Amino acid sequence: MVAKIKLGVLSSTRGTDMQAIIDEIKAGRLDASIEVVISNRKDAYALERARRHGIEAVFIEPGDKSREEFDREVMKILKEKNIDLILLIAYMRIIGPEFVSEYKNKIMNVHPSLLPAFGGGIDKGVHRAVLNHGVKITGCTIHFVDETVDGGPIVVQKAVSIGEDETVDSLKEKVQNAEKEGIIEAIKLFQEGRLRVNGRRVRILSDENTGHSSGG
Amino acid sequence: MVAKIKLGVLSSTRGTDMQAIIDEIKAGRLDASIEVVISNRKDAYALERARRHGIEAVFIEPGDKSREEFDREVMKILKEKNIDLILLIAYMRIIGPEFVSEYKNKIMNVHPSLLPAFGGGIDKGVHRAVLNHGVKITGCTIHFVDETVDGGPIVVQKAVSIGEDETVDSLKEKVQNAEKEGIIEAIKLFQEGRLRVNGRRVRILSDENTGHSSGG
Repeated sequence: MVAKIKLGVLSSTRGTDMQAIIDEIKAGRLDASIEVVISNRKDAYALERARRHGIEAVFIEPGDKSREEFDREVMKILKEKNIDLILLIAYMRIIGPEFVSEYKNKIMNVHPSLLPAFGGGIDKGVHRAVLNHGVKITGCTIHFVDETVDGGPIVVQKAVSIGEDETVDSLKEKVQNAEKEGIIEAIKLFQEGRLRVNGRRVRILSDENTGHSSGG
Repeated sequence: MVAKIKLGVLSSTRGTDMQAIIDEIKAGRLDASIEVVISNRKDAYALERARRHGIEAVFIEPGDKSREEFDREVMKILKEKNIDLILLIAYMRIIGPEFVSEYKNKIMNVHPSLLPAFGGGIDKGVHRAVLNHGVKITGCTIHFVDETVDGGPIVVQKAVSIGEDETVDSLKEKVQNAEKEGIIEAIKLFQEGRLRVNGRRVRILSDENTGHSSGG
């Protein structure tokens, strides 16, 4: 048995991938709880989505706060809630070094491409850039967050084929489905203690090597 | 019926992918002939491989020839042989603008990664770079050659998953298998007249839209 884990979500937009986590928990396939959803945008649908599922939703006003001040407010909440793993789902802010170091290898970001392709701060227009470049395969990446933008150690990637009549919207939908699958996989690997970060590489241990018993 | 096409191969090394083309032709699944294999390296095994299969093998001494002089010698041979499609298989030379323009959208390069990731002249160490970066998915790209390095319009890509105990050698073998599959696919699409280049994007027409009759 692996222990139940407490998740915290940071999102600036709809938090669509979060729905997959909620569904997985409700279906009894993931022994976790989303303790809090935090956003830097008051009207982010991720907050509304959280409330609808009885999850605490917190808006933090960025105002003229420095990155450090903002991050500390976020961390204060995460600490209070004893969060084990933080998920960035379309979170449109850079996380400062203090936050990164405090939660080293405990923050995962979901990026809508196969990094290192189409990374580096083009989050909003990734699918457009992918289509303009004419690639035939894209996908998604779930990676630990470090000091770089989209550069942290990669936990899970999923490939997505691009069709002949693909549009930004149709591609976004396909990649989001891959993201949902990938993020659930990444959470479970984290929960089972199967991730070992070595420099840029994340080794995934087999079930037998984790020290968890798999039975009840 | 599509017409038989004449292929020319440029290679600086073993030309491993060429074997897949030879095999496909011998098996009667590809109506094509490799008319000539050209190398800038006298000891390239691609030349030996060609001779063993009764294919003309030509070494062109680079010496102190300018890129243009070298390219013209290559083009002279390709012209004499009425080559329809040129394949660069681990060809370690940049092709000049005159050559590119003379054979616009008739030269394909095989690259051992999912471009634009791990492109741009690191051909020799691509798999090492991929492993060092810790990506979980890589692959291969077959693209038309333009004036940029590894930047031309993409015809076919194939994804390859990276295992936990992957080495440069094991990865190379997996990617080469994907390359072989991809290059055969790309040659057939070219032969069937199904490729339409529009800026950076290559559209692949469905069978019905090519004007070829599919019967005998």
